[in-house]
Amino acid sequence: MSVVFNRVAIIGIGLIGSSIAHGARESGAAGSVALYDASESVRARARELNLGEVFDSAADAVRDADLVVLSAPVGAMGAAAASVKDALKPGAIVTDTGSVKRAVVDAVSPHLPQHALFVPGHPLAGTEHSGPDAGFASLFHGRWQIITPLDDARPDYAAAVDKLEAFWRALGANVERMGVDRHDTVLAVTSHLPHLIAFNIVAMAEDLESVTEGEVVKYSASGFRDFTRIAASDPTMWRDVFLNNKEAVLEVLGRFSEDLAGLQRAIRWGNGKVLYDLFDRARRMRREVIDAGQDTATPNWGRDDGKA
Amino acid sequence: MSVVFNRVAIIGIGLIGSSIAHGARESGAAGSVALYDASESVRARARELNLGEVFDSAADAVRDADLVVLSAPVGAMGAAAASVKDALKPGAIVTDTGSVKRAVVDAVSPHLPQHALFVPGHPLAGTEHSGPDAGFASLFHGRWQIITPLDDARPDYAAAVDKLEAFWRALGANVERMGVDRHDTVLAVTSHLPHLIAFNIVAMAEDLESVTEGEVVKYSASGFRDFTRIAASDPTMWRDVFLNNKEAVLEVLGRFSEDLAGLQRAIRWGNGKVLYDLFDRARRMRREVIDAGQDTATPNWGRDDGKA
Repeated sequence: MSVVFNRVAIIGIGLIGSSIAHGARESGAAGSVALYDASESVRARARELNLGEVFDSAADAVRDADLVVLSAPVGAMGAAAASVKDALKPGAIVTDTGSVKRAVVDAVSPHLPQHALFVPGHPLAGTEHSGPDAGFASLFHGRWQIITPLDDARPDYAAAVDKLEAFWRALGANVERMGVDRHDTVLAVTSHLPHLIAFNIVAMAEDLESVTEGEVVKYSASGFRDFTRIAASDPTMWRDVFLNNKEAVLEVLGRFSEDLAGLQRAIRWGNGKVLYDLFDRARRMRREVIDAGQDTATPNWGRDDGKA
Repeated sequence: MSVVFNRVAIIGIGLIGSSIAHGARESGAAGSVALYDASESVRARARELNLGEVFDSAADAVRDADLVVLSAPVGAMGAAAASVKDALKPGAIVTDTGSVKRAVVDAVSPHLPQHALFVPGHPLAGTEHSGPDAGFASLFHGRWQIITPLDDARPDYAAAVDKLEAFWRALGANVERMGVDRHDTVLAVTSHLPHLIAFNIVAMAEDLESVTEGEVVKYSASGFRDFTRIAASDPTMWRDVFLNNKEAVLEVLGRFSEDLAGLQRAIRWGNGKVLYDLFDRARRMRREVIDAGQDTATPNWGRDDGKA
């Protein structure tokens, strides 16, 4: 694999930032990797993990970088951009990994100098773990990287988008381009609402009076445990997602609640046909997800295999 | 492993019934296995799969059985009991595998003759697949089998409960005893509500106007795909669960909707602290589920491992 960027700087060393560091070095897509995190203990850990050259200031980390990746929580992206703006070299490409795009564009763009090229992005990859120890090089393999180019007519801009795309392909991702607002609408459905629902049911179960938390945990394999995995995701990251994709999330949440009220009514009035038809329709989507290569067909994801 | 029951009859040859057939024979817990299903094509398939002695009437299947397992959908349990009642031998133990216990007890008990011993049960095991081909012997390994004994003062009854427990242990399950109504309350939280929510979000996503079904499928790995697995479960089985555990489901569903409305309000008003605190609380439950051996700690359940 040939070098795509001579030097890549990563601002924010969590699951995503550390995985980019691993992936960029293992694939050879980056000649060198510089890193910075606002937390001193995270920086110390990144040094121990040997993720790259770790700096004590964001400006120092980005000084010679051809690509700067802002991989902070969505709510911290503006501050991250402000902390690097004076040190960006002419022609530097700046991208981000935020799960929300419009709010990040609005927060980051005003800080960047004219000589930088901002190409927002979002890797649809992750696990329920977080922090610099959670990262691994293959996190992006076969996953989508969405790039949301801006309306930027400068001649260098299109080349910057292509180069960023080549970088992500080198890390093993499939790349798709999409409009900024379209991204936020689609992700509200496929990612933000599912997470909100998972957080809600898990927190609800914790403070029920009718069933103890111990009972919920003990019998969680009958369905509940699936939700606990998603609900284990980083709370800061997700708080920022919901605060910054408010309109799209509230819209699909309204739809979800409306449909759920319909199911509630069908249960109360014993309308089995409404229930059956909806369940049957939902079932078919599983096949499409598997056929699209977005999940394994192995029963229970194979997690119980080999269990004694 | 010594024989627990000389002859086991299984009425209903779906995922659970066929798994019991496999497990009873592989473990040696049953001397012989007799089967019946109301569907002729399922019976034919069961013969091809060599699951045991397949009969064309339920009565013939149970005639010499020491244990009769009713593994039909909850709504069909009463009819299943009626179809075997005249052929049960004195002292025969009858159990079931229904996901709801009070409604099954009410539907089955009136049909059974005095000389039979009814010990309801529910294996907390399954996959998103269904039908006779979906079964496998290790399905119950390390999973809970809940037994809900009735208030039956006959001297033989306690021995029947013990014997049924021994049978499930032979199939690899951990056995727990619980009251009939307690079971329905606990499972409404750990299983029924999670399934209802999964069905609801998947069906909702299918008929959104703002995002196409193709987009939902394509980007489903960002959270949504987890819900499609649960929503792929058998629609008849689940329709019957909701129609037959109405009160407990409506109660927890009310709580869920109430809490979700609270989150909706926090998003609308930008109350990040409410969101963070709830997400942080939800996150902690994941650790408890893993510590209790109810799920794997492997990120993403390991389903992406080895993906190119």
